[in-house]
Amino acid sequence: MSNNQVRAAILVIGNEILSGRTQDKNIQFIAEHLSNGGIVLKEVRVIEDVKSDIVNHINTLRNNYDFVFTTGGIGPTHDDVTSESVASAFSVELELREEAVDSIKQQYIERGVEFKKESLKMAMIPKGAELIQNIVSGAPGFRLDNVFVLPGVPKIMQAMFKNVMSELSTHYRFYSITLTLDVGESTIANICRDIQLQSDDVQIGSYPFVEGKKWATRLVMRGQNLKQVQHVTMKLQAVLKKHKISFSEQK
Amino acid sequence: MSNNQVRAAILVIGNEILSGRTQDKNIQFIAEHLSNGGIVLKEVRVIEDVKSDIVNHINTLRNNYDFVFTTGGIGPTHDDVTSESVASAFSVELELREEAVDSIKQQYIERGVEFKKESLKMAMIPKGAELIQNIVSGAPGFRLDNVFVLPGVPKIMQAMFKNVMSELSTHYRFYSITLTLDVGESTIANICRDIQLQSDDVQIGSYPFVEGKKWATRLVMRGQNLKQVQHVTMKLQAVLKKHKISFSEQK
Repeated sequence: MSNNQVRAAILVIGNEILSGRTQDKNIQFIAEHLSNGGIVLKEVRVIEDVKSDIVNHINTLRNNYDFVFTTGGIGPTHDDVTSESVASAFSVELELREEAVDSIKQQYIERGVEFKKESLKMAMIPKGAELIQNIVSGAPGFRLDNVFVLPGVPKIMQAMFKNVMSELSTHYRFYSITLTLDVGESTIANICRDIQLQSDDVQIGSYPFVEGKKWATRLVMRGQNLKQVQHVTMKLQAVLKKHKISFSEQK
Repeated sequence: MSNNQVRAAILVIGNEILSGRTQDKNIQFIAEHLSNGGIVLKEVRVIEDVKSDIVNHINTLRNNYDFVFTTGGIGPTHDDVTSESVASAFSVELELREEAVDSIKQQYIERGVEFKKESLKMAMIPKGAELIQNIVSGAPGFRLDNVFVLPGVPKIMQAMFKNVMSELSTHYRFYSITLTLDVGESTIANICRDIQLQSDDVQIGSYPFVEGKKWATRLVMRGQNLKQVQHVTMKLQAVLKKHKISFSEQK
């Protein structure tokens, strides 16, 4: 892979994922959109709503990667400790941000619900952070340096993340071609290894699955240069034909 | 939470999750079963199929937690590097394990498919590891010290994991009671905070969601002592009634 990769990590903050109560839906959404935007997701961590843990992981990830995206823990209750943890990680204070207060109050008016002062906790934002607008429910996310702090509720996270991605669009893109083969992985293990050894800039991923009672395999060729991806795929197809292994291309 | 917790981590190994191509289904399955078995899942990491990364993360997690469960990367192809990485992490060699060879060959016979010698890669197991039987597709997982190495294909992983859990059953259990409230989190933020401050051994989790166009909240009281969980729930219900907030209990 080329060295001018833009690399990212996700930090999912939430006991509900670790207890198995909730199926996470945010990782795949963010992963897919980063990939489409040419950003390489290198690592995901899921951790508890514990301030010291959040501080440590934020500091590790923001030093290791170009961008860090956190989800969860920015609501108004006692178990929402992400904002104060991010502030700690950057050694800055939280402050009441007027634009955030306005945005939260506006949502109360639109929903015709009485304003609760406990909501103001969601307007306490680390000093120096840039707000990320929340068109769904008012309470904003924020960006501090290379860390993007997003909510855990998928619908709200997704709306915010799309805004973020439109600003982060890089000039890198990923291209991939998927071939589906009606044989198991062992049959094509050597073929793939040989071609992978000759192809530094295109990754070949091999994913087995069961179809009926038979093993089948998906091969995914992925890289930042479409021509290279196509070239590796053609080489592979030629060898598969030689071995009389049938394949179909998937869009 | 009490100090006699048994603590675990999951290490998901697979580019297909990080690229967004695949929705992970293993985390929630393992999380739920650990929770039912009284083991606390403290952390999950998702990383690439890269040997040096796998070695580092395995070593960090196995030192920090009682048990580590890895998924993915134990197939026969070039991108399956988990077994050799685990061997490296423990500074032991891989060796061809006869029972594993037999089990893999047996599956070929049962499926009426010609044996492929590339499958033998899946019988290369770190020295000293205990095999975890695979009744679905033959190729085993293994346990080395406190690290359990499982496949990524959900159906096979699940069958193996159930075997593992039956051996790990602890005498700890978690109990939880869930209340659904038809108000948003801000309305009950102070109530929850006050009760949480008086209840060290029961965690109160607050999870907002949207019902139609209205905000609602699920409160989950969770702990290792059923009486304490019930007691905290009753205290909470009394305060909710005082504030005329209606709630329903969920099984």
